[in-house]
Amino acid sequence: MNAGRPGPSLRKDYADYYVIQSRWMDKDVYGHMNNVVHYSLFDTAVNGWLIEHGLLDPHKGAALGLVVESGCRYFSEMAFPDIITAGLRITKIGNSSVRYEVGLFRNDEDRASAEGFFVHVIVDAKTRRPKPIDDSARDALEALLVM
Amino acid sequence: MNAGRPGPSLRKDYADYYVIQSRWMDKDVYGHMNNVVHYSLFDTAVNGWLIEHGLLDPHKGAALGLVVESGCRYFSEMAFPDIITAGLRITKIGNSSVRYEVGLFRNDEDRASAEGFFVHVIVDAKTRRPKPIDDSARDALEALLVM
Amino acid sequence: MNAGRPGPSLRKDYADYYVIQSRWMDKDVYGHMNNVVHYSLFDTAVNGWLIEHGLLDPHKGAALGLVVESGCRYFSEMAFPDIITAGLRITKIGNSSVRYEVGLFRNDEDRASAEGFFVHVIVDAKTRRPKPIDDSARDALEALLVM
Amino acid sequence: MNAGRPGPSLRKDYADYYVIQSRWMDKDVYGHMNNVVHYSLFDTAVNGWLIEHGLLDPHKGAALGLVVESGCRYFSEMAFPDIITAGLRITKIGNSSVRYEVGLFRNDEDRASAEGFFVHVIVDAKTRRPKPIDDSARDALEALLVM
Repeated sequence: MNAGRPGPSLRKDYADYYVIQSRWMDKDVYGHMNNVVHYSLFDTAVNGWLIEHGLLDPHKGAALGLVVESGCRYFSEMAFPDIITAGLRITKIGNSSVRYEVGLFRNDEDRASAEGFFVHVIVDAKTRRPKPIDDSARDALEALLVM
Repeated sequence: MNAGRPGPSLRKDYADYYVIQSRWMDKDVYGHMNNVVHYSLFDTAVNGWLIEHGLLDPHKGAALGLVVESGCRYFSEMAFPDIITAGLRITKIGNSSVRYEVGLFRNDEDRASAEGFFVHVIVDAKTRRPKPIDDSARDALEALLVM
Repeated sequence: MNAGRPGPSLRKDYADYYVIQSRWMDKDVYGHMNNVVHYSLFDTAVNGWLIEHGLLDPHKGAALGLVVESGCRYFSEMAFPDIITAGLRITKIGNSSVRYEVGLFRNDEDRASAEGFFVHVIVDAKTRRPKPIDDSARDALEALLVM
Repeated sequence: MNAGRPGPSLRKDYADYYVIQSRWMDKDVYGHMNNVVHYSLFDTAVNGWLIEHGLLDPHKGAALGLVVESGCRYFSEMAFPDIITAGLRITKIGNSSVRYEVGLFRNDEDRASAEGFFVHVIVDAKTRRPKPIDDSARDALEALLVM
């Protein structure tokens, strides 16, 4: 990613929040949260938010979101037993895709320890082919939209 | 384990509690928490409790606990986004070992969805040889002791 | 581990073998394979063997195996990038349950670094109710049976 | 994924290869490899290659690599029990950083199922401050360099 990128966001730069506990196994041999775990927290925060808001039923829903791209920048370390607040925002709602951005805030810190994103393509649960996001889902997702 | 075993314990059968969130990835292809994840929750609850009570510093401490045996019985399913309360108890404190038992309670349920145990051998952080549990640690661990 | 327990088995004590690579993330802050990972290897070895032998189709099969109990004893450390050979044996085939035992052998070692087991209850894929193991599956599973 | 982006690379577009087995737990509730697991494979392939070539000793080495950025594009599904070949290449060796790119090839397929990257900053193992890559390491890393 390019040199002009801004540094870590603050909590206020996100539209909603989802709290996640760290686990013992999140730490790797270097004593900090392994870089892979951050993506597990992104998945948990976004899917957790979607389920809470009635936008995802992974077992019986007609549609689900598949990740087609993801990324993360790591600014500072996290470790067990940190409590992590995931800040959530959406920066683009396309015809059948959504770009989520997630900041991970360690304990009481106001500056993100890591920031990432992923792009969901919304697909039909059976055919796994892309389908347009319906209006009610679009309205609900706009709660996270940050321009 | 043998036929005479009792069914799942209740919350009151444990001495202290540690709350853990489920994660999206905890679910496997069968749509429930994979049997491996339970052990990650045991580790998190026990080590989390030890750290909170000043009994474990995994980076600088003189002693640490290595797992020499573990086990779990699974009574009913858990899934994301369940909140899991881990009930904690110790049933044996030996010269240099501790047997922890952990019950996992799903959301508001009073009967454990799964119950497991592990045995820590306390070792010197450098030599990794067993060392006796000192008196102050022994006193603190007795808070979890259930006979 | 009580005194009457036998020590680690040898490779020859198992009926078949399944090779698994370790991963970077398998190591925890103590620099060795975390005790949770062993259960992931048990699952992988047994389900891998079942799929290879046409005994499990996790997506379209009429039956699947749910773990109702598991356990492990840890004898010596493993780490990344070890190649692990899982020794497999069955010690009991019940009406609708199977007890698998798995030994984990590090690189060229002949003595298990860890040994565990799990009990599968065979259930109908839709109702998740126990169902009897059919004769052809029983015959195939007997390839792993060690008395 | 924007329109200007190239599609998946072929095996020949990589400089070396590292074979990794999938695991049962890699699959999520949607029946395919969860998007988080890909990053675990990147870490395993790159660190495995570095260890094999004498460029990383995570326990006693004077230097280690910390991930400061990572990303992945997902083109097609993988699942257990696939054998995955990780293609490896380096596209930039800076003063104290290395950009690795990894393609994941499912079984015998020639076109990547997913492609990702991460940037290691080389740090002193004790101070965790960036340090210049020494000449012998630089020479060895050039085996993966693709311009």
